[in-house]
Amino acid sequence: MYIDNQLLANMVDEARPISSEGRLVDYIPALKKENKDNLAVSVCFLNGEFFYAGDYLEKFTLQSISKVITLALVLMDNGEEEVFSKVGMEPTGDPFNSIVKLETNRVSKPLNPMINAGALAVTDMIKGATNEEKWERLLAFVNVLTGEEEVTYNKEVADSEFNTAFLNRSLGYFMKQHGIIKGDVEHLIYLYTKQCALEMNCQDLAKIGAVFANDGMDPVTGRQLITRDVARICKTFMVTCGMYNSSGEFAIKVGIPAKSGVSGGIMGSVPRKCGIGIFGPSLDETGNSIAGLRLLELMGNEYKWSIF
Amino acid sequence: MYIDNQLLANMVDEARPISSEGRLVDYIPALKKENKDNLAVSVCFLNGEFFYAGDYLEKFTLQSISKVITLALVLMDNGEEEVFSKVGMEPTGDPFNSIVKLETNRVSKPLNPMINAGALAVTDMIKGATNEEKWERLLAFVNVLTGEEEVTYNKEVADSEFNTAFLNRSLGYFMKQHGIIKGDVEHLIYLYTKQCALEMNCQDLAKIGAVFANDGMDPVTGRQLITRDVARICKTFMVTCGMYNSSGEFAIKVGIPAKSGVSGGIMGSVPRKCGIGIFGPSLDETGNSIAGLRLLELMGNEYKWSIF
Amino acid sequence: MYIDNQLLANMVDEARPISSEGRLVDYIPALKKENKDNLAVSVCFLNGEFFYAGDYLEKFTLQSISKVITLALVLMDNGEEEVFSKVGMEPTGDPFNSIVKLETNRVSKPLNPMINAGALAVTDMIKGATNEEKWERLLAFVNVLTGEEEVTYNKEVADSEFNTAFLNRSLGYFMKQHGIIKGDVEHLIYLYTKQCALEMNCQDLAKIGAVFANDGMDPVTGRQLITRDVARICKTFMVTCGMYNSSGEFAIKVGIPAKSGVSGGIMGSVPRKCGIGIFGPSLDETGNSIAGLRLLELMGNEYKWSIF
Amino acid sequence: MYIDNQLLANMVDEARPISSEGRLVDYIPALKKENKDNLAVSVCFLNGEFFYAGDYLEKFTLQSISKVITLALVLMDNGEEEVFSKVGMEPTGDPFNSIVKLETNRVSKPLNPMINAGALAVTDMIKGATNEEKWERLLAFVNVLTGEEEVTYNKEVADSEFNTAFLNRSLGYFMKQHGIIKGDVEHLIYLYTKQCALEMNCQDLAKIGAVFANDGMDPVTGRQLITRDVARICKTFMVTCGMYNSSGEFAIKVGIPAKSGVSGGIMGSVPRKCGIGIFGPSLDETGNSIAGLRLLELMGNEYKWSIF
Repeated sequence: MYIDNQLLANMVDEARPISSEGRLVDYIPALKKENKDNLAVSVCFLNGEFFYAGDYLEKFTLQSISKVITLALVLMDNGEEEVFSKVGMEPTGDPFNSIVKLETNRVSKPLNPMINAGALAVTDMIKGATNEEKWERLLAFVNVLTGEEEVTYNKEVADSEFNTAFLNRSLGYFMKQHGIIKGDVEHLIYLYTKQCALEMNCQDLAKIGAVFANDGMDPVTGRQLITRDVARICKTFMVTCGMYNSSGEFAIKVGIPAKSGVSGGIMGSVPRKCGIGIFGPSLDETGNSIAGLRLLELMGNEYKWSIF
Repeated sequence: MYIDNQLLANMVDEARPISSEGRLVDYIPALKKENKDNLAVSVCFLNGEFFYAGDYLEKFTLQSISKVITLALVLMDNGEEEVFSKVGMEPTGDPFNSIVKLETNRVSKPLNPMINAGALAVTDMIKGATNEEKWERLLAFVNVLTGEEEVTYNKEVADSEFNTAFLNRSLGYFMKQHGIIKGDVEHLIYLYTKQCALEMNCQDLAKIGAVFANDGMDPVTGRQLITRDVARICKTFMVTCGMYNSSGEFAIKVGIPAKSGVSGGIMGSVPRKCGIGIFGPSLDETGNSIAGLRLLELMGNEYKWSIF
Repeated sequence: MYIDNQLLANMVDEARPISSEGRLVDYIPALKKENKDNLAVSVCFLNGEFFYAGDYLEKFTLQSISKVITLALVLMDNGEEEVFSKVGMEPTGDPFNSIVKLETNRVSKPLNPMINAGALAVTDMIKGATNEEKWERLLAFVNVLTGEEEVTYNKEVADSEFNTAFLNRSLGYFMKQHGIIKGDVEHLIYLYTKQCALEMNCQDLAKIGAVFANDGMDPVTGRQLITRDVARICKTFMVTCGMYNSSGEFAIKVGIPAKSGVSGGIMGSVPRKCGIGIFGPSLDETGNSIAGLRLLELMGNEYKWSIF
Repeated sequence: MYIDNQLLANMVDEARPISSEGRLVDYIPALKKENKDNLAVSVCFLNGEFFYAGDYLEKFTLQSISKVITLALVLMDNGEEEVFSKVGMEPTGDPFNSIVKLETNRVSKPLNPMINAGALAVTDMIKGATNEEKWERLLAFVNVLTGEEEVTYNKEVADSEFNTAFLNRSLGYFMKQHGIIKGDVEHLIYLYTKQCALEMNCQDLAKIGAVFANDGMDPVTGRQLITRDVARICKTFMVTCGMYNSSGEFAIKVGIPAKSGVSGGIMGSVPRKCGIGIFGPSLDETGNSIAGLRLLELMGNEYKWSIF
């Protein structure tokens, strides 16, 4: 299973043309400006070695990818029992922003932490006396994971999302009504939009994916950053519901834990093998990077990454 | 069809005991204090004559009854076409606070103006440059209808509802996302909770019911307060969806246009005959005054009021 | 409110052209052959006088109109309590063939007897030791209502529907699972498709509408064919859910009890005034005769028929 | 990771007592007679070695476990493209027998082949000119997988299920209406209930699980019985939706491909390691063997089987 930058570059070239069949996200104004043909990748192996292709140092916002990171933090802070009293463990065939199940299920808790409702409930559980303390706690955790002290958030994107996050407010208030959300909903939306606007490049993302792949241990420093159980739980959610409404199809076609965001980023985590960071802003109908999916399929087939 | 205060008092006495089988509303703190056994009624005939029984001058808040009044105002101000581009005309078997249909229907507009989602969309259409102007416009209309210059709102109830109106905020933001709500959602919730907290007694309510019954003309002054068409439309909605999830059952058992509120008020409007105001705060499972329903059934049978 | 055949003919001429905007039913093969521009009407007043326009003696099948007739029979045979233990009284915003509510409602009973699920449950309650006896009982009742001994069913239409009634079988088996349907589902579908294929002309239909309008009494013979209460209940369902998913809109625009079928028939019943039979096979999107609706609107406005 | 029969027996003893908290299936009359405290297991390693504990040769019916086997056959016979044109790949938070999504999704195809609707659509695709041929084809495949020529079906259970399979008929007719099911629904239900009544013991089941675990190759004979891709696809569905509505929770707690049935059987398949057959008829609320789940959790933790 030989890998080098040239082989990665070839696969990126093979995957890139499908970008023309997708489109940029339209509901977050600040993200409409991206170059639709961009495609970059970085792979971080568990010995700390990195490979890459494309403009892998270009920054992008995490969007839904941040849901996995916050979940890891919150699970370690609050324990499985408390977290899963507020949010379920089951995948769903409903869209990521659906509110129907909150009403028709007898217990009004979100089905899982990867849909927006569940992610909001998770973010609400970040420890901190104030919203600012919660944010600092999350940011510090992200910087420990990337190993850089420089990750921050894109204020323009965060502001843009905050002003138009009507659906997330609707979900938030619905859960507030049913006791799932404890804090102030406006504060929660503010914190959540900053979380979604966390900004990094493919290499940073591959590094975080590698921490999950390495059972929570930093492959560079050897420090245990996430407990083994929490790393395992996060990878499980990435398989059952990490790729929006095509999670099932992705599991069948590629078969690795991965989480996508509408910015076009994808974080992959191949257990005991490597972490992957991808950025390709042209999206398919379900909201996943269309060329990123193709690239992961090519890489997964070449390197036999499927866990099944 | 002879009526007098004694006959009404007898029917009130017959209906009152069922109050013990219901319960006071629990989600609006300020309404928990009512006397569960209260039952009062006033009937206003189209010659301007009033009859009454029980403590018919005790004030209560309108809650959902206000939806019909606001609808009348907004229909006259904006026209049928504009109003029904934002809200449908169809009854629904879903609960009054349901959000499911907003998501599963292809067009995200509320099914009708009597469910909360639809009522919020209607209140959003009250004319006025500011929230204050809108409120003044609504209040002036209510005072014209009652013919008293003294109706106002219960600030304690309004504040209490405003602070806990999470589900209405959820509905509001959902519709904001889908372009049904134009204005600011917090302003809308503030205006809507004041509207719901409009306070009057059974006699005022009977008077308003009589205006609808009289095709929009004030039975006392002879002034046309509501256009004939708008009065007819409002009465139609009262029949198809005025009594929450038991509208169909009420139409079968009583068969008159009526609108209830969770305060325990009911406004009835028997076309070309009379208006009715009832107050009985003990509610059945669907949110209607349990003794009020019984009383309407007794009166309806006695006076052959069913329109069917 | 003068009426004569010429006035009716004028209104038919005014309404007919809108037929071109609708289309013939496509899911019942035998009904695809109708002349799309047909439009006929008959009105039966409570003194027994008939008026008509168009080819009012042409026969057509009742389809969903039969639901009201069967409901009347079954209510008289079984009593309100038993019938409403199997089927609800509430209108619904869901389509007539919807199965969703059967699953998501805690009690799996159909919302009302006008949707297919509810109508199947009603037909299942027709008295009779065998399917043949049930059919004879229903047919005899229909012939008593029309006053002719000649109404029967269209075998070609019934067979065609029976062979393709997969959705009704799906509804039937769902209710069989939940104990709403007692009998054999295949037998029920067979009986139900014959019921839907009952065939008559506008004059017969106007006569039946007049019986309901006349509180159950035959306007020609003076015999009480349906009890007053059952006639009232049926008219109520015609208003709240008689016109498929545009029942609410029809109540607002026309405001009379009416029941439509996908054959293009409509039976109207104006309380204490008259019965109406209409046939116009071109349908609008919700399955109602498009020219028939227009004609009812014209007649309703002209003669002030709205009950609201 | 040492394993022997004594260690397995110890884990069975540890898991068995929780049986008392579950209950036997109640909707299949023939299954009500089982001994609630039964718990047996067999493990088949890829070198062909078997271990076991409890009454591992007692026979039980496969019920939903058969869905995976039929899926493998149908995928090989018809190809991925055809199969996935009829049934989706996405997990769902709805119950296994839900019909709601068939109606509310714009394309009326079942979300995945592990829910009843999807499994019916898959069984409908078994090749064969007659129902008997289809059955023979399926039975032959099962016997090749177990390596015994003696697997057959339990006629009493099949008959019992056939007579009460109203919900499956409802699903079948719904899909017939929408063109997902091509064949006769009664024939399909007959074939499907025989499939569900396929009967074998834990050792047979462990053997089949081992074939899937071994990428489709028989660990005893070395023959490729299932293609590598189809084996992988089946294991993926077992993870995302193999354990009814607690598939997500099982993936988190145990993390291996597994499929359960309401008879109390579970087939596990640990990629590149072993197959597992379990029988414990006492079920939890979601329909999984309650002691079987506990046993798998104990074994999974002991032998580090999680694929995440």
